[in-house]
Amino acid sequence: MATHKLLLLPGDGIGPEVMGEVKRLIDWLNSAGIAKFETDTGLVGGSAYDAHKVSISEGDMAKAMAADAIIFGAVGGPKWDAVPYEVRPEAGLLRLRKDLALFANLRPAVCYPALADASSLKREAVEGLDIVIVRELTGGVYFGEPKTITDLGNGQKRAIDTQVYDSYEIERIGRVAFELARKRKNKVTSMEKRNVMKSGVLWNEVMTAVHKREYPDVTLEHQLADSGGMMLVKAPKQFDVIVTDNLFGDMLSDIAAMLTGSLGMLPSASLGEVDVKSKKRKALYEPVHGSAPDIAGQGLANPIAMISSFGMALRYSFDMGALADKVDAAIAAVLASGLRTADIKSEGTTAASTTQMGEAILKEL
Amino acid sequence: MATHKLLLLPGDGIGPEVMGEVKRLIDWLNSAGIAKFETDTGLVGGSAYDAHKVSISEGDMAKAMAADAIIFGAVGGPKWDAVPYEVRPEAGLLRLRKDLALFANLRPAVCYPALADASSLKREAVEGLDIVIVRELTGGVYFGEPKTITDLGNGQKRAIDTQVYDSYEIERIGRVAFELARKRKNKVTSMEKRNVMKSGVLWNEVMTAVHKREYPDVTLEHQLADSGGMMLVKAPKQFDVIVTDNLFGDMLSDIAAMLTGSLGMLPSASLGEVDVKSKKRKALYEPVHGSAPDIAGQGLANPIAMISSFGMALRYSFDMGALADKVDAAIAAVLASGLRTADIKSEGTTAASTTQMGEAILKEL
Ligand SMILES: CC(C)[C@H](C(=O)O)[C@@H](O)C(=O)O
Ligand SMILES: CC(C)[C@H](C(=O)O)[C@@H](O)C(=O)O
Repeated sequence: MATHKLLLLPGDGIGPEVMGEVKRLIDWLNSAGIAKFETDTGLVGGSAYDAHKVSISEGDMAKAMAADAIIFGAVGGPKWDAVPYEVRPEAGLLRLRKDLALFANLRPAVCYPALADASSLKREAVEGLDIVIVRELTGGVYFGEPKTITDLGNGQKRAIDTQVYDSYEIERIGRVAFELARKRKNKVTSMEKRNVMKSGVLWNEVMTAVHKREYPDVTLEHQLADSGGMMLVKAPKQFDVIVTDNLFGDMLSDIAAMLTGSLGMLPSASLGEVDVKSKKRKALYEPVHGSAPDIAGQGLANPIAMISSFGMALRYSFDMGALADKVDAAIAAVLASGLRTADIKSEGTTAASTTQMGEAILKEL
Repeated sequence: MATHKLLLLPGDGIGPEVMGEVKRLIDWLNSAGIAKFETDTGLVGGSAYDAHKVSISEGDMAKAMAADAIIFGAVGGPKWDAVPYEVRPEAGLLRLRKDLALFANLRPAVCYPALADASSLKREAVEGLDIVIVRELTGGVYFGEPKTITDLGNGQKRAIDTQVYDSYEIERIGRVAFELARKRKNKVTSMEKRNVMKSGVLWNEVMTAVHKREYPDVTLEHQLADSGGMMLVKAPKQFDVIVTDNLFGDMLSDIAAMLTGSLGMLPSASLGEVDVKSKKRKALYEPVHGSAPDIAGQGLANPIAMISSFGMALRYSFDMGALADKVDAAIAAVLASGLRTADIKSEGTTAASTTQMGEAILKEL
């Protein structure tokens, strides 16, 4: 059996708690002889700042580079609101994305039937929802230069951020979306603001070309990002795969996640290019939810998004689709049994702590 | 009685139809001696392109500069998808905003009780919703330079858009938001992405300073734009006034509008700075909805957003608040009577065409 090297980066807030439940799962997989994971742990975000005054140390970056996959918790919190911009908690996550070239961020937004009533949307609007947002993750306004604040004198400053996209960046994220759609409902909706942004014009042009040349069998639709956002709120089930840039993807995937009523349940995968020689790709898996500092350390956090993110690792990094299916089934079974963490509890369900939820899923497995 | 100069720019799609109902209202106000409006009409968007190969002619720009207020319909449609970027329909609207320095875009998102069920959100989440998005309208990525597409050779292109904000631009939109909040529930939520964008850092810093210096009596909260979008979907009633930049404002105001279930009902105002001498300010009023080319010319469009935008003109440009209240009351009364255009019809209501709706509102007045 091959040994897989995992780097666990729990981060801040509820990160360590939910990561604890993934560790429990990994330990069991190892001891039951189902898989062979070698794990190492590092610091990222505010916890790295507290220890080393950086958002991730060079040592942990080296470990990340060498790992077969990174399992990431969450970063940030008011505690670090005043730290210098360059070493703010988020910088650690952004550096991992950029330096590991994790350009493809897959964010499924799935509405668990047992949780449909937790959505602020009407049940009929979200029941059965199953879409994926494919977000470009290493380009756009997140990383473009110049990115500066300049003092203009007279108490005036000027802030500049730059959105930059090259054709190849749009092509490769397009391919990820089209490939994924082929395994799903065969439909891709590309969202940009071509009526205002030159990057939107190029985005639209390149998506259209890739589609025509390589994926004519997939349905491609274009939508302006603002009306796309509206359509997501009005009738999200019309979508299958949505492909969009880094900043629109940030906004739209959060909104899609919130629609489902299952924010504490949603995983994500950030993938690099497949290496031609080793056939491997760098990858980082993280829950869509944040570090929730307000409930940290109280055993209240829902570990399902984190466990489900590990499930995505099994599927995308280790070709263990069958095992990933079992993890998904175990989560569904535990939910069906009525067990609920605080964020998703409703009348007639049984309250569970982070640990109780993790243990129940493991027992189900 | 003072004479007020209006420039009507119906634009494309359903623009001319809904503008027709405003004209009807203006004619009546004039003939009943309630007000004195002098109207002129111009072309903008696709209709200007069809006539003059530009998105707005210099002649119409001059009229816009001279008008006391501009009443704007909507622009765009698939017919002009292939026209050169510089003369695309939206360019006319963007030029009006920029050249008239209409930096403050006020977008109320109000849920009409009679229409709460038209929302995809649960009634309890949106019933009674009454928030205003204050969007910065002449800065940010919409207008920053460079804004280019460059050919890099090898079939590769590079697109660049630039987000630029100076302190004074953030200060003045902040003031608009704080002033508005004082007349409402006294709360402002500022949204940006300071964890990723330098413009977000400056936005946050300037808002905080303006608040501390000039509006300490107003409650100010800061939220990251992505989680702000989530909160809008989850529990929109927690907000009063939201202030944000041009691009986030574009996304967030559309989402807020869609939440209400009343997209065809929502007006907006775009305001310039008050001139110290004349005490006047340039202003453009337009519905939040678009040109809806799919239903254009069929008498199906809902004229309420357009009429209500004219109501905002009465209030903000002509100091006729009492008359504006009457317009709002007439709209509410007609809705209560059960009259509905196609976009908002439901069981037990009476179908009305664009004209029938406009006439009913006028009769109510
Ligand atoms: C933490 C932050 C930098 C990050 C982002 O903006 O990408 C987060 O919001 C996300 O969506 O993963
Ligand atoms: C038509 C378009 C240029 C415009 C914008 O992006 O500002 C529209 O979406 C709006 O919100 O008024």
